[in-house]
Amino acid sequence: MSLTVVGSIAFDAVKTPFGERDRMLGGAAVHFSLAASFFTEVRPVGPVGDDFGAEQFEVLERRGILTEDIERVAGGQSFFWRGRYEYDLNVAHTEDTQLGVFAEFEPKLSELSQAADTLFLANIQPDLQRQVRAQCSASFSGLDSMNLWIETAKDSLLAAVAEVDCLVVNDAEIRQLTGEANLARAARAVMALGPRAVVAKQGEYGAALFTEGGFFALPGFPLEDVRDPTGAGDSFAGGFFGYLDGHDGDLDETHLRRAMGYGTVLASFNVEEFGTERVSRLSREEIDERFETLRAMTQFDGLAAPAE
Amino acid sequence: MSLTVVGSIAFDAVKTPFGERDRMLGGAAVHFSLAASFFTEVRPVGPVGDDFGAEQFEVLERRGILTEDIERVAGGQSFFWRGRYEYDLNVAHTEDTQLGVFAEFEPKLSELSQAADTLFLANIQPDLQRQVRAQCSASFSGLDSMNLWIETAKDSLLAAVAEVDCLVVNDAEIRQLTGEANLARAARAVMALGPRAVVAKQGEYGAALFTEGGFFALPGFPLEDVRDPTGAGDSFAGGFFGYLDGHDGDLDETHLRRAMGYGTVLASFNVEEFGTERVSRLSREEIDERFETLRAMTQFDGLAAPAE
Repeated sequence: MSLTVVGSIAFDAVKTPFGERDRMLGGAAVHFSLAASFFTEVRPVGPVGDDFGAEQFEVLERRGILTEDIERVAGGQSFFWRGRYEYDLNVAHTEDTQLGVFAEFEPKLSELSQAADTLFLANIQPDLQRQVRAQCSASFSGLDSMNLWIETAKDSLLAAVAEVDCLVVNDAEIRQLTGEANLARAARAVMALGPRAVVAKQGEYGAALFTEGGFFALPGFPLEDVRDPTGAGDSFAGGFFGYLDGHDGDLDETHLRRAMGYGTVLASFNVEEFGTERVSRLSREEIDERFETLRAMTQFDGLAAPAE
Repeated sequence: MSLTVVGSIAFDAVKTPFGERDRMLGGAAVHFSLAASFFTEVRPVGPVGDDFGAEQFEVLERRGILTEDIERVAGGQSFFWRGRYEYDLNVAHTEDTQLGVFAEFEPKLSELSQAADTLFLANIQPDLQRQVRAQCSASFSGLDSMNLWIETAKDSLLAAVAEVDCLVVNDAEIRQLTGEANLARAARAVMALGPRAVVAKQGEYGAALFTEGGFFALPGFPLEDVRDPTGAGDSFAGGFFGYLDGHDGDLDETHLRRAMGYGTVLASFNVEEFGTERVSRLSREEIDERFETLRAMTQFDGLAAPAE
């Protein structure tokens, strides 16, 4: 099995009440790939500039991530984002965004990326997402987006959503995209466009999964120390799609629910430290241990043994 | 087993995008009592005015609620609240509050109310909560409060919290009360004051339960039609404490988790219609059916049979 992800590969400057970093490895495709790398073979697709060097490639390659579709643009600068968080860590305030080489990005997938079983379109301009979708034969695909594209490129975004199996966005974005204040109705409206699953990311409250006739939700994993929420949603998506791609067989309700669990676990490790610091030295054993803890925390009958 | 609750018994005027009511039965002790009445014997304590008549008493008595501790104050007016909700139903905007007979309320519990096994102190001035707590020998007690008392009577509220077993408030209030932005830390700070359980109500996101060494969370029950959120938190508390009081044996983690489930279910029925309309004609069969649906929705292994 193999997984292709297209999205930003970036440097981030982040300030939170618990510290700051001037220039650290980041970007949606990076956080996604690191999280997914514990489950399957991952190929991130996206452009970087001359400033993206051996040190950054090594973070990815140490986790077995296949970097041949990361396009180095000579003379260019990598995508750069600067943001800060208030005391409650719930809202990111963007202070600077420099598209750099992303401004001229025209996705060209290698043959191996085109042949991936699973495709994830991280948050980029929806016409670019559609170009990538058209190049890839994946049998299962997902998409993330943001309020900017709902406001400036809604028709393109709706067309992109219609071409994927699973939408993974913040709950406020599902409401904004559909014009439905009620989340259950909004999710149903998305499914009417094409996707058979909708994941509503809810920040510290966790995430909810809507399928035809199904509903499942997990709380965020309770942590006493959260240092930097940047990349939490992308880490969630990486755990979610990584598990689904790495798993043989049908993507039925049980597997989607387990994928929600792995997404929640990867997001929780991501926020414990800045940027990719925690996930880049994580082990599969730590993931599985937290997965079992999360399962025990969400069993209705508290003292029941796990069902497996 | 028996349950005493002290709190407002009121008339509400409510406007939501889905309708309005000029003057309907409401108040925390009313919503709590109706929800708890499906599980145990309930005695609400609180004052009403001449305007509270046979029609209102009948709503309670039809559900077997014992009304002898509802004090009728001759010449007085019942507590009155007027509020409205925006399109997303998440925030109540208070337009008018008239304390009426509540302004002079001095709680005097009857012998039967004093002897209750379980006591719930709904959101009233914390010195009044302490007066009630001192009169009641209940072996399990809970308390709700609000930002007003955190801002104007914090020392009294902290003393009241220290005297109960379980705090049930909105998550923002736990943060405000403790000065801790991190909810897990905030809940631990509350437990250091005395309570052995803390329930953080999270509106549409559901509720989280913190105990010594334990964590559990449930999403709000997904509904496509929510008409009036007034009383949802009190209905949650009624289902939660009603189930715990109605249940023989230790209040261990399993029972607390099941109580979270019944609280979630009662809150979900409450918001389907205005005021007490839905819960006052609910059946235990409908509650148990939705409880099983909620359990199935939150089982990690989607296709596993219920554990019981």
